[in-house]
Amino acid sequence: MTSNETADAVWSDVQAIRAQAPLVHNITNYVVMNVTANALLALGASPVMAHAEDEVEEMAGIARALVLNIGTLSPPWIEAMVKAGRVATRNGRPIILDPVGAGATRFRTVAAQRLLRDAPPAVIRGNASEIRALYTAEQETKGVDSTHGSEDALDAAQALARHYDCAVSVSGSTDLIVSASAVILVSNGHPLMPRVTGLGCTATALTGAFAAVNPSPLRAAAHAMAVMGIAGEIAATRSAGPGTFQVCFLDALYLLQESDIRTRLKMEEA
Amino acid sequence: MTSNETADAVWSDVQAIRAQAPLVHNITNYVVMNVTANALLALGASPVMAHAEDEVEEMAGIARALVLNIGTLSPPWIEAMVKAGRVATRNGRPIILDPVGAGATRFRTVAAQRLLRDAPPAVIRGNASEIRALYTAEQETKGVDSTHGSEDALDAAQALARHYDCAVSVSGSTDLIVSASAVILVSNGHPLMPRVTGLGCTATALTGAFAAVNPSPLRAAAHAMAVMGIAGEIAATRSAGPGTFQVCFLDALYLLQESDIRTRLKMEEA
Amino acid sequence: MTSNETADAVWSDVQAIRAQAPLVHNITNYVVMNVTANALLALGASPVMAHAEDEVEEMAGIARALVLNIGTLSPPWIEAMVKAGRVATRNGRPIILDPVGAGATRFRTVAAQRLLRDAPPAVIRGNASEIRALYTAEQETKGVDSTHGSEDALDAAQALARHYDCAVSVSGSTDLIVSASAVILVSNGHPLMPRVTGLGCTATALTGAFAAVNPSPLRAAAHAMAVMGIAGEIAATRSAGPGTFQVCFLDALYLLQESDIRTRLKMEEA
Repeated sequence: MTSNETADAVWSDVQAIRAQAPLVHNITNYVVMNVTANALLALGASPVMAHAEDEVEEMAGIARALVLNIGTLSPPWIEAMVKAGRVATRNGRPIILDPVGAGATRFRTVAAQRLLRDAPPAVIRGNASEIRALYTAEQETKGVDSTHGSEDALDAAQALARHYDCAVSVSGSTDLIVSASAVILVSNGHPLMPRVTGLGCTATALTGAFAAVNPSPLRAAAHAMAVMGIAGEIAATRSAGPGTFQVCFLDALYLLQESDIRTRLKMEEA
Repeated sequence: MTSNETADAVWSDVQAIRAQAPLVHNITNYVVMNVTANALLALGASPVMAHAEDEVEEMAGIARALVLNIGTLSPPWIEAMVKAGRVATRNGRPIILDPVGAGATRFRTVAAQRLLRDAPPAVIRGNASEIRALYTAEQETKGVDSTHGSEDALDAAQALARHYDCAVSVSGSTDLIVSASAVILVSNGHPLMPRVTGLGCTATALTGAFAAVNPSPLRAAAHAMAVMGIAGEIAATRSAGPGTFQVCFLDALYLLQESDIRTRLKMEEA
Repeated sequence: MTSNETADAVWSDVQAIRAQAPLVHNITNYVVMNVTANALLALGASPVMAHAEDEVEEMAGIARALVLNIGTLSPPWIEAMVKAGRVATRNGRPIILDPVGAGATRFRTVAAQRLLRDAPPAVIRGNASEIRALYTAEQETKGVDSTHGSEDALDAAQALARHYDCAVSVSGSTDLIVSASAVILVSNGHPLMPRVTGLGCTATALTGAFAAVNPSPLRAAAHAMAVMGIAGEIAATRSAGPGTFQVCFLDALYLLQESDIRTRLKMEEA
């Protein structure tokens, strides 16, 4: 179990999101747009989806966080992401990058690399294979610090965090959230979660909401993963399978109480 | 409570939709395509989504209503909307315009203004801030009647209704549905509804189904908002949060009975 | 009821999908992307959605089946489908084509015809009107064997199966699955299924998963329709309407047991 101070910090962010309803601008994939918008709303944030090059700068300009997700990507969307990213960067708003499918195709890997450079993220959030693929690609093309042959997700995440001066949030049965100097482990969650499409993308979107209210990318990313995992645990108690789970997960986000976090949180610094 | 005649008129439209299953052509945003298709099916209508310039004229030509929704817009979609709108206009089929995000970016505001001109709607359906934004923009650029400094949604809606000779349907805790000469208030609904993404867009899609069977845009728009609100009230009695609500809302639309309308309808002319 | 051998064959495919989690590459429509991804995951397969011309060849190259679905089509997607199809063909991977809306617009009919030629499917999966429309169009333009004026779905399906040397799977209250030399009838399913958007597209996606593990397109297509129908029957026992049905359907796919197939399967060769 986790210290009271840590639970307080998570709950404080949830309360801030509910009170402020920060606008989170998402340029994300077709598969998850509905689900991630609903998750942001259930948590208390205000989602907006906009990808046209003609409007992304204006939209990013009024948002408090920018979420870039490269699933179902095509070239015009990359340009829009870069444009929106420039505005977010200029305004000091956090960018969250989800390198969906990095490593699966060269197009995605290269797109993720371009966004790392042209829309520098506060948080990179992906699964272990995406983070490892990004690390390997960066190592090959940009001289990211070698992890001496090891390619486990923690080493890759730490190397990326150092090189890009950002937090890296790796989902798994234990989530790893790292910065250049810290490692946080979150062990909340449920085995049904990988059986629902887009829950990784939902984690990314919620990380945007937390980053809108918490100035530490590391803390924001860790708190988002904790809330994801806790809502997942609660949803699982009410679900027969992945269909009901998806619905109960949104309910759980909406109904989340301080006591849920106090009794369930499994977060520790490594 | 509302007169029996009013409840009869709402129920008569629901029965007509169920009997005729009118084809409703939607050019709408990515976030809500699935949800609005399901809502139209649950109500008894036949949804089709098609946006390619190569086919929208043919599709609009076989549909009984056209729903244009500018969320997640990009330039080719505007051209497709205009093309589809021309066919609908020529065939005397009602166009329903949802100016999602008008006022949030100039791109959306200008797109909505273009559609008002090139695809004249039978009903404009939005929330209060979208309707006010559209009114303000029209006033600046096209000399819409001034409401003498007041910018409340009712004044804005009435000015737009007069200028564009259409109905304007404004969702809120009390929905306002206005024409040049009438105002209808609908007070059905539930506080969970704004916590589900795309329920405004669903209201717009259902307005298309009602406009397909009711020749009065004002009545069609009001009946759609009443059915939305009543289905929402029923869904809320079975829901723990916004996830279960979304699912129960579709069930409620599908199961809607005359007695639900008789006992719950809160519609009055102002 | 159906022979034990037939039930064994269906169950054997389900077990193979669960054990192998085959990657199914979908180039499909916006309306159903989320739902079909969730259905594939619930069944035990691994879905990926990717449509950019820059990456479809690479993605198709690592997938074990390719699903092409022409709903919400636009021209660049057709090119991507052809590119992906070439790779799948070269690698001997099955292509499943869903001609959504063929016959409704010329654009869709022509696109389906092009895919039949340039991305030859192992299975064409549609509803009766799409299959008839495709047959009529082929007859007009390519001299497909005439069915002597009859245009019922079985005749059309058999003519297409012969001409394109593929299986044709036609959904309806009784599903018809035909090859050049065989006809299988599947009578599972529930009347609520047509009231949920995208269940036809889901059938197509699941056919991709079955074709990934079963070398007979005819058997793969029939087993997919049987599992769809049985999961639908189970879901209906737990549903109040189409909203809860959609959710319970995913649960039913996930929880499907051998006994469900043994007790419910209604499949016979005609």
